[in-house]
Amino acid sequence: MEQTIGFIGVGNMGAAMARNLLADGYTLRVFDVLPDRAAALVPYGAIQVACAADTVVPDGIVISMVPNDQALTEIVSGDYGILTRLDGGIHVSMSTVAIQHTQKLTDLYASRGCTYLAATVSGRPDVAAARQLSIFYAGNQDAKTRVLPLLSRLGNSERLYDLGELPVAAMAVKIAFNYNIPIAILSMAASAALAERYGVPRAVFLDLLLRSPLFSGTVHREYGRMIAQDNFQPALFPVDLGLKDTELMLYESDYAGVFLPGISFFRECLQQALAHGWGKEDWAVAARAFFQDVSQTALWRDEENHG
Amino acid sequence: MEQTIGFIGVGNMGAAMARNLLADGYTLRVFDVLPDRAAALVPYGAIQVACAADTVVPDGIVISMVPNDQALTEIVSGDYGILTRLDGGIHVSMSTVAIQHTQKLTDLYASRGCTYLAATVSGRPDVAAARQLSIFYAGNQDAKTRVLPLLSRLGNSERLYDLGELPVAAMAVKIAFNYNIPIAILSMAASAALAERYGVPRAVFLDLLLRSPLFSGTVHREYGRMIAQDNFQPALFPVDLGLKDTELMLYESDYAGVFLPGISFFRECLQQALAHGWGKEDWAVAARAFFQDVSQTALWRDEENHG
Repeated sequence: MEQTIGFIGVGNMGAAMARNLLADGYTLRVFDVLPDRAAALVPYGAIQVACAADTVVPDGIVISMVPNDQALTEIVSGDYGILTRLDGGIHVSMSTVAIQHTQKLTDLYASRGCTYLAATVSGRPDVAAARQLSIFYAGNQDAKTRVLPLLSRLGNSERLYDLGELPVAAMAVKIAFNYNIPIAILSMAASAALAERYGVPRAVFLDLLLRSPLFSGTVHREYGRMIAQDNFQPALFPVDLGLKDTELMLYESDYAGVFLPGISFFRECLQQALAHGWGKEDWAVAARAFFQDVSQTALWRDEENHG
Repeated sequence: MEQTIGFIGVGNMGAAMARNLLADGYTLRVFDVLPDRAAALVPYGAIQVACAADTVVPDGIVISMVPNDQALTEIVSGDYGILTRLDGGIHVSMSTVAIQHTQKLTDLYASRGCTYLAATVSGRPDVAAARQLSIFYAGNQDAKTRVLPLLSRLGNSERLYDLGELPVAAMAVKIAFNYNIPIAILSMAASAALAERYGVPRAVFLDLLLRSPLFSGTVHREYGRMIAQDNFQPALFPVDLGLKDTELMLYESDYAGVFLPGISFFRECLQQALAHGWGKEDWAVAARAFFQDVSQTALWRDEENHG
């Protein structure tokens, strides 16, 4: 086992993953732009360091789980960035960021004799804590062989997917995978609104939808329950992160020339949710925005005889 | 048990349901516009009759499972229609038709001293044969009490949903329920196309999507497998019926003033599938139309450095 690993970005997701590695006996050099977050892992055995560069052991492995493209650029570049010291090592980037940004970093690392791996994850902090993440990873073969033992500690060993030598593939799969979630939320919201228009309460409709074997997966069950109860707490995936993911989907849709139906409308629902002050709720609150947005006057209500 | 029941429309769905009632000891008077279909049930004990009116026992129950609004009008009205003889009886209409048509028939039956019940179903012929249908029923309370024993022979007793006194509610629920299916097909197709654009074969992507607990329901599993294998046979729900359902969704969306995102685009995919000559395939073939329609030149391919 490699004893010392760099770990950058210990928000809800990163912290859950880092705690698992610490419990397995790895030594972690941890950095976060919010020092309190890194400090919170010291009781678990982490070594808190002052900048991204300080997490690096030469020729070592650094894992990062930061929120967006800009944060990723900041930990990589500049005087305090990973690249000042990585020196032949591997950066395993687990964030969901733009596909093109992934390609730029892949090229940059190669030009410096280092390796950039993309290893995106599906699953929220509770799933990470239970080591049940799905992990989509891609990049240089030798580097993948070296980090696989680490990935198998972070995710479900039956759901670690090697997607080849191009890191962009791991990013495309993550973004494509995630697209199915807001579309399911939107589909449940719109269908519940239609049923409600004819007097069937959304909770009754969603109960019958979710009791069908047709829609028994976790996405429908969990988000369907939130929508039925109009209760979007606890926010397992809050609106602000949801907006970031949704914007990535839109951007990649344009860039790759693949239409992703419905996602543009979903973003409008999220933006409306923000405007209503629901930014701290789970992103399924887009459904509530949908219900409020739906016109309250419909043709059939205007006809005396419904005929 | 009421011994004699009228049964109109014994295509794939109707025949599976009628055989179950015959096996339970009911006497069925069966009519279909295609006489061979009704004749095929005679060996199971059915009595074949020459017109819709002849299925009726006065003050009795007639079940219908016909393909669309027009077929429903034809079995109800005119000299050979149900209403000439129903005389206080109940028509249990199990087809998916327009909500407004349902309201018109409800009013018409009431004006003639008869009762119109809507009892829509979710499930394909194999599900019907196994008595596992979900049934959404609504209408007059006394009539519902009288037909419930019949419905419980046709569907799963835990998935019979009484939606109140307005037959339109049963229709709205069925249309809203079904809307979630094409949206799931479209969402899988679009996301697989995005992954494929970055070199991950659609079968690999869909395998990873379907092995996640997030999307483990039957709709994702069954249609996802069809899309992954690019094999849309056997056609459990063929393109022509799919187009009818999709057009109902569009129509009701306009009429009720509830936007159903994505469904208009899904219809275009189905129409394109028809144009390609895939009309006899399952409606999930819309995914193949989507793949072919996706632009083959994307920005990232035009850039030398992908940067």
